[in-house]
Parts: sequence; C-alpha cells; structure tokens
Amino acid sequence: MRKFVGERAKRLITKNTIAPLVTLSNCQTTSTLSSSNYCCNRSHLPRLPSSLNFPLRCYSVMASKGASPPITVESLNPQVLKCEYAVRGEIVSIAQKLQQDLQKNPGSKSFDEILFCNIGNPQALGQKPITFFREVLALCDHPSLLDKRETNSLFSSDSIARALKILDQMPGRATGAYSHSQGIAGLRDTIAAGIEARDGYPSDANDIFLTDGASPGVHMMMQLLIRSENDGILCPIPQYPLYSASIALHGGTLVRYYLDEATGWGLEISELKKQLEASRQKGTTVRALVVINPGNPTGQVLAEENQRQIVEFCKKEGLVLLADEVYQENIYAPDKKFNSFKKVCRSMGFGEKDIPLVSFQSVSKGYHGECGKRGGYMEVTGFNTEIREQFYKLASVNLCSNISGQILASLVMCPPKVGDESYDAYFSERDGILKSLARRAKTLEDAFNRLEGVTCNKAEGAMYLFPRIQLPKKAIKAAEEANRAPDAFYAIRLLNSTGVVVVPGTGFGQVPGTWHFRCTILPQEDKIPAIVSRLTDFHKKFMNEFRD
Amino acid sequence: MRKFVGERAKRLITKNTIAPLVTLSNCQTTSTLSSSNYCCNRSHLPRLPSSLNFPLRCYSVMASKGASPPITVESLNPQVLKCEYAVRGEIVSIAQKLQQDLQKNPGSKSFDEILFCNIGNPQALGQKPITFFREVLALCDHPSLLDKRETNSLFSSDSIARALKILDQMPGRATGAYSHSQGIAGLRDTIAAGIEARDGYPSDANDIFLTDGASPGVHMMMQLLIRSENDGILCPIPQYPLYSASIALHGGTLVRYYLDEATGWGLEISELKKQLEASRQKGTTVRALVVINPGNPTGQVLAEENQRQIVEFCKKEGLVLLADEVYQENIYAPDKKFNSFKKVCRSMGFGEKDIPLVSFQSVSKGYHGECGKRGGYMEVTGFNTEIREQFYKLASVNLCSNISGQILASLVMCPPKVGDESYDAYFSERDGILKSLARRAKTLEDAFNRLEGVTCNKAEGAMYLFPRIQLPKKAIKAAEEANRAPDAFYAIRLLNSTGVVVVPGTGFGQVPGTWHFRCTILPQEDKIPAIVSRLTDFHKKFMNEFRD
Repeated sequence: MRKFVGERAKRLITKNTIAPLVTLSNCQTTSTLSSSNYCCNRSHLPRLPSSLNFPLRCYSVMASKGASPPITVESLNPQVLKCEYAVRGEIVSIAQKLQQDLQKNPGSKSFDEILFCNIGNPQALGQKPITFFREVLALCDHPSLLDKRETNSLFSSDSIARALKILDQMPGRATGAYSHSQGIAGLRDTIAAGIEARDGYPSDANDIFLTDGASPGVHMMMQLLIRSENDGILCPIPQYPLYSASIALHGGTLVRYYLDEATGWGLEISELKKQLEASRQKGTTVRALVVINPGNPTGQVLAEENQRQIVEFCKKEGLVLLADEVYQENIYAPDKKFNSFKKVCRSMGFGEKDIPLVSFQSVSKGYHGECGKRGGYMEVTGFNTEIREQFYKLASVNLCSNISGQILASLVMCPPKVGDESYDAYFSERDGILKSLARRAKTLEDAFNRLEGVTCNKAEGAMYLFPRIQLPKKAIKAAEEANRAPDAFYAIRLLNSTGVVVVPGTGFGQVPGTWHFRCTILPQEDKIPAIVSRLTDFHKKFMNEFRD
Repeated sequence: MRKFVGERAKRLITKNTIAPLVTLSNCQTTSTLSSSNYCCNRSHLPRLPSSLNFPLRCYSVMASKGASPPITVESLNPQVLKCEYAVRGEIVSIAQKLQQDLQKNPGSKSFDEILFCNIGNPQALGQKPITFFREVLALCDHPSLLDKRETNSLFSSDSIARALKILDQMPGRATGAYSHSQGIAGLRDTIAAGIEARDGYPSDANDIFLTDGASPGVHMMMQLLIRSENDGILCPIPQYPLYSASIALHGGTLVRYYLDEATGWGLEISELKKQLEASRQKGTTVRALVVINPGNPTGQVLAEENQRQIVEFCKKEGLVLLADEVYQENIYAPDKKFNSFKKVCRSMGFGEKDIPLVSFQSVSKGYHGECGKRGGYMEVTGFNTEIREQFYKLASVNLCSNISGQILASLVMCPPKVGDESYDAYFSERDGILKSLARRAKTLEDAFNRLEGVTCNKAEGAMYLFPRIQLPKKAIKAAEEANRAPDAFYAIRLLNSTGVVVVPGTGFGQVPGTWHFRCTILPQEDKIPAIVSRLTDFHKKFMNEFRD
C-alpha cells in the first residue's frame, strides 16, 4: 500500500497536473508530502461506523485547467429547472415535517394526524385492495403455491384459474422476466377484449402499450411530438400538472384552454379555437390536444355530444387527441356516463386512418386505486407504421413495464364475471367503494358550498373537488407579504391548523384572479365528519381574521 | 338522433369550415347531404363484431386551412429518430417471427426453439426466482394470508417476519399506495444499511432514489445534465446501448472512449484523457463519465487501483461519475472482486463535497435476475441541496417507482442471514445459480475461442460474452450487398440456422473495422452443449462458404 502511494504521488507531482496526494496518519511516512497545506482534516471526512477501521488515505486532487465547470443548479438542463409539479410541492414537504413532529411529540398539535388530500392515493388512506386482484398477483409471484393442497382453501377457484392462465402467457412462466416491449401479448389480448366489451368496437392487442402508470405514456407522447418550443400542446386549465411538467421537460409550449367553471367546467369548442388560433398567430405549431375525462382536478364528465365536437375539432385541425381516461371507472353522477374517445370516434365513422388518438388508462385510479403498482396502458390508434416503429423503439429503450402492473391492468379490464366464485365478493367490494366515494364527494361538496365565499362544482367523476374561494383583499395582501400565492397562503394555513393537505389551485392553473384548491374525496368515511368540522372552523376563523 | 344530425350538418355547412357530415344507410333520409361524393364506404370502417349493430354515422371533416401538418415520422422529434437500441432491434423482430412460425408449424426448422441470448433475461430462459424473495412479495401483496393458520406451513418464518416489517413501513400498510417520491423510507433505510455492510462506509437513506430498474435512473441523470448537443457524456465503447440511446433522446453528444480488448477490455486513463481533450477542442462541455463495472457487454471487472485512477480523473476534470454497478453480484473470476465506486471514493478520503457520484443498482441483474419486476435504485452523493431538489422534483413528476420493485430492491440488499430459517435454501439457490453461470460462461468462452478467427475475452463478471470475429472479406462483401453491417449479417445467418439470438457488435459500438457479437451466458445448463454444437457447425459452414 505505502509503495503504491509513494509511487503514485511521485508520478502525480512529476506530471504537475494535480495537487500532491496526501496520506492520513496510517501512511504519514510518505516523505515528500508532509505539508499540512495538503493534509485533509479527518473531521471533514464522512462519519465512519466506529466498528470500522479501514486504512484511509486522503487524496487532494486539484481541478485541471480545462476542467468542466462544477455542477451547480444553474448548470442543469433549464427544461428541468422550468418544470413544476405542485401535487408534491412545498405543501407536501411542510406536511411531511408536521407528520414527523407528530410522531416525535404526539399531542403537540391541535390534530392527531395528517390527512393527505393532496393526491389520489386511496390505499394510503385506508382503502383495501380488491381481493381477487391480490389473490392473482400473489399466485403469479409465488407460483409454487399452486402446487400446495392448502391453496384451494386460501384462494378462490377463479383466481387460481386466472393465475394459471396468466402464467401460461409469460415467457418462462415468470413474473421476473422482461416481457415484449409493449407488454405480454396474452395480457394485451385480454385488455383489448376488455376495451371491445366496454366500447362495442374492435380493439387490437397490437395497439396496446403497457406502461408503468399513465405518466410514462404521457411522457412518451410528449417526447415524440415535441421538437422545440415552437411545438405546442393544447391543455385544459385547470389541468393535472403532469402535462405542464412533461411539456416543460420536453421543451415544448403549453397552450392553455380554459374550462368554464360557470357551466360545471365545460369544455367549449369556441375556446379551443380561440386559443389555437392565438397560438398559431404567435408561430406555434400546435400538435396535440389533451383532454382529461373525467376531469382532474375538475371532476366533470364530458357529454358524448361534446366529445364528438372535440373529435371533429382535432380532425379538422390536424391534432393528435391525447385522451386521459384514467378515471373512467369513477363516475358518481347518476345521469353521467363515461364514453371513451375511441368509441366516440368509431361511432362517428372515423377509423384508423382518420384521427391519431391515444387513450391513457391506469391501474392507479378506478375503484381499485392500485397506485403503488404503477400499471397502465396506452391504446394507440391512427398512426402509420413508421410512427408506430418509433413508439416501439421508445418502449424498448426502457425494456418493458413492470409485470405486476401489467397483470393488474389486465385484471382491471377483465374483472370477475357473474358466475365466477369471486364475483359476489368482487362486486360488493367495488360497489361499496364507488358508493362510498359518491357519498364522500357529496358531503365534501356540500360542506365547501356552505363556506362563506366558497363555491364548488359537483364531482361528477374522478377523485377530487376543486372549490373556488373568494379571498378577501386583506388575505391577498397578507399572502403577498408572505411571498406566496393567495391560495397557497390559504392552503398552508389550513394545513397548519387542521392537518388537512390540499393543493393550491396555482399548481393546476386557473383563470387569473380566481383562487381554488384541490381536495381529494379519499379519506375514509369515518374521517369525513371531523374533516368537515375542522375545515369549517378553520375557514370561519380565517375569514374573521381577514374579512375586508 | 336524426334531428341532431340534420341540425349539426346545417350548422357545419353554414360555417363552411368542414365538409358536410354524411350518414350511413340507417340515416340516409337526411335530405341535404345525399351526394355520393361524401358517402363513406362501409368497408373502410373498422371491422365490427357481427353481434354489434350500432347506429353508425360517418363524419367527413375536411382539414381547416391553417391545420397543423399531418403527423408523419419526419415530423417527430429528431432526437427520438436518432435514438437506437440494438438489444431489441431488427434481430429480435426476426426472432419473434421465427418463433411464431415454429409455433404454427413445429418441426418446420432445423431447430425446435428460439434461444434468446440477446438480452440479460434469466427467468425467461428458465431460471427460478429466489424463494424467499417471492414469499415476501406474495405476503406483502396479499397480507390477509398473514391472518391464516395455513400460512405458517406454506411460508418460512423469516419471510413472514420480513413481510410484517415491510408492511409496517408502508403508508396504509399497502403495496397499492404511492410512496414517497424517493421510495418508502423504511426500505431506503434497509438499502442504505446493505450498502454500508457491502462497503464499510456510511450510506444515507436520503441519498437513495428507488427507480423502476436502472434505466429510468440513467434517463433522469441525462435529463438533468444535458442542456444541448454541446454537452457531452463520456461512455465506454463497447457500451450498453441504453447510454447512447438516452444521450440521443436528451439531445446530447456521446463522447466515446474505447476499452482495450487486448488487455481484457481494459479502461485506460490515457484513452479517457485523449477523448476528453479531443472533445473539448470541438467545443463540447463534457459533463459526466459513464463506467459500467462489471462491464456490459464486455464482462470485465475493474481493479481497485484502476477505479482510483478513474475517480481522480473525474475529480480533476470536474466530471460527474455515473457508475453502472448493476452486475455487482455477478462475479465469476475467483481472483476478481467488485468494489463500488462509492467505497473507492471514500477509501481515498473523498467525501460528500469532493465528487458527484451516482451509483445505479437494479434487481434485474445479480443472481436473482428479477427483470420483470423493474426495481432498482440510484445512490446519489456529492450534489448540493439545490441540485438534489431538482432530483426530487423529477422523481415526483413520476410519483414513485413500483412498490414490488422497491421491496425487491430492499431484499436484494438485505437477503436472509445465517440463522434465518430461509438462509440455507437461499444460500443454496444463490450459490447454485452463480456457480452455474460461471460454468456456462467458461464453456461458451472456450467454445468461441475454438472457432476459426474468433477470440473471446473471459467473462469475469456480468452476463455476457463479446467475442470478436475476423470476418473474411467475402463475407463483408456479401453483407454489403445485403445492405447490412458484417456482424449483423453474421448474427442473422446464425439466427436463421440455429435459432440462437445474439446482438451484433455494431449495436454496442466497437473499434472501426472490428466485428463482434454479444451472447448472454443465460441459457439453462442442459441447453449449453446443443448451443455449442450448433454454433460450431454454423460457424464452420459460414467460414467454408466465405473463406477468402
């Protein structure tokens, strides 16, 4: 060791390109180098477990003259710096800090837990997974259970049958093997059959790309479509900030179209036209229209007639239609129905050659809320073979999406059927969740509407309410002084007083001068009354403090 | 319906912006529109299941004057078009086609199965997963098993204990919940402890970012570091093509440094310097150095002394060190040992402030080969708080990596220990796989070295051999005529003759004028003799056909 150090040091000194290498106490005999200038102070070294006693040498290497400039935040990709993602922004950091405080000092706050209403994450708030789905996953991951006698009493017969079918579809019968880049062919067949049953129109397994949730699919589309900041993507405002983040990351331009709060977050074609034209006049090539149906954060469910208009608009304007349909199972208004854009296109007679359409689906949403599994798919239609080869290549660079997520996506699109052993339990779990979500949505909506200066549209679908708050001028001034957006000021106050985490409307976009926040409808039902009373008390106090 | 159609049609005609809407047979009475010019032929419509009889209308919408140009492959992001990924390129498409042929007409080829030696995918080739890992996964996904009496006889006591511990670490005890953007804190603690045990130096759970395999981590780093084509990343040649693909996707410049085949794919600092300087002279800002250790596709394991030189080089030149360490468990040469770059840095006295270092790990590799689970992590050290906030933001935009992958990453870094009920089984499974891989590597290496004009370095680690073929001029000419790279010509011939899928060296990069292919060592041991004899026969025939 010493020999090496000495030789190396001499070589380095001779070359005179880096500062001499210096040894710590265990090799201080290296004669030429005992200048304290070069010597590292061991206290600057990383803490070492006391049980360890490794020979430590300290290298002091000076930067070369032409060295790359040090990595600073300013030297990072400006597209990354520009990107924002409010759903996990500052308010969540504050909430995490509060949660740690509560764990350390229980009883130190006026509330005993943090309620994360910032994100659609049902199972984190106590929702139980669908039993059938988890039986199949467990059997696929640990197939030797299928050889055991006890398994018949522990698992339903249809979960066993489904697991066997899925295992047969996988290379090596292994959930641990990479699949085809688009996902396991047999699972894509099942999903395509599910889409066909949903829509009444054919679906092709070759059009399905399984993804780790909807987000990677959205990123893939942005990556394909955006060439420079001259390329624009029409997005609803308010929007789920994945879209603005992904457009920023890929260097494109967000072209806003505003949903009309007064008509229940209506999507007006005249507004689409206006924004498209304005954007074109600025020299932007608009490449795609994002529609989120049911809406996030706005909760509206589009009428079929409205969807036809949107399809016509895209066809006429040469836009790719990016249809975020991840909340397709979450419909609470009895008079509303989800129609996929693919179904609407096909019902208008538009086929494969007429309109490029991507439908995003996710296992994170729906009644099952399997967010942590990161499963989903895109159904990609209306693109020619050459373009599809590029999709395939991009999917291949990441090898494949995770197999548990792939399996879940197939289960979600083809759940137990009448007559299957699991059906009754499945139906009751599903129905119980959806009915409860509808009740929670109504209770919270009513509660918001009772607050002074607050109006809240109905959550017809999805998982959120997006109430509007008329903030007093005094509150807006106080926010300004605190260097925060007024809705962020309100949301942080709410969090600190009640432990309820909501996301300020600023993070989703809103008509300038209006203020909102997004609140999920996901806390378990027994927590709702306490949330309502805390919210109400907080709001009264807030208004009393700031009323003009 | 007819009323709607009529009104809509009139409105559209009045506006004169889109061509009139035409109805099919079921609404042909709409009077103003019965020109056959506008009428769609139903045969152009998508095939409908015969059981369906939906009211179909056919919209014929003409593009608006200012419409966006149609989406063609030429109009996609040129960075996507530039990106290449050979591991799943043309040769895999040919292989998939052959496999389908074999399924349809068994016995129609001179081989009875396709052997996918193109990709490190052990479980697809019959490797069994580690029992303990799968027990824990199944229990975490279906925790109601933990309440059942039968579970004690079906699962080991330590898998039950581990599952209970992991469930306690998760929000809602749910594998279906999104986690912290970096991954579940408790799992990160376990991983950090595993790194500490491996290296003998501290590791901080806050430095761990759990990822869906190593690839998304690499993409994240490229996204952060690359601002334009003026930013370069030093990559080994031959390299795993994820790197070239990711650099192309993010619009940067690949700065090649060549590994020295003659010294067992040695990584020479002089070569790094030469390429760095040449690149700087062209005006490229080189931001990072990628090192793959153990090497892919080259299989070498770096000596600690060499790693120290690399660390010094990065320090001196101001480069981020991107250490691909996904094969750290796959070491076959008895005289070789894996040293993490973090350990090497710390042993040199370099701490948090001295060198930005990212270590990538994956559950896809190692002895366990859990590719389909898409789990992994990056350990990120040496970046300041502001930069780390950008890492966190990027991780947040994708919410979190999949929880099964997260759990597996923690199991891989903290497997059963002596005294645990599972230990003996675990050790024997692990040892069995690693010893078998070493035997397979040796057998294939010897077989390659016996072929005329082929030389093959030892696979000291990882999962691949990368033999060099001296192709006769005649073969090179024949390849040229077939419009293929000579090594692709060879590999496709090999595939068509033997069913063995290898990846041409062109896909990884190689010294110009040399030809190679990558072959995994993963087919199960009972298949190796047949592979060797088929390869040998093929090669003889090939050389006989083309010998100059």
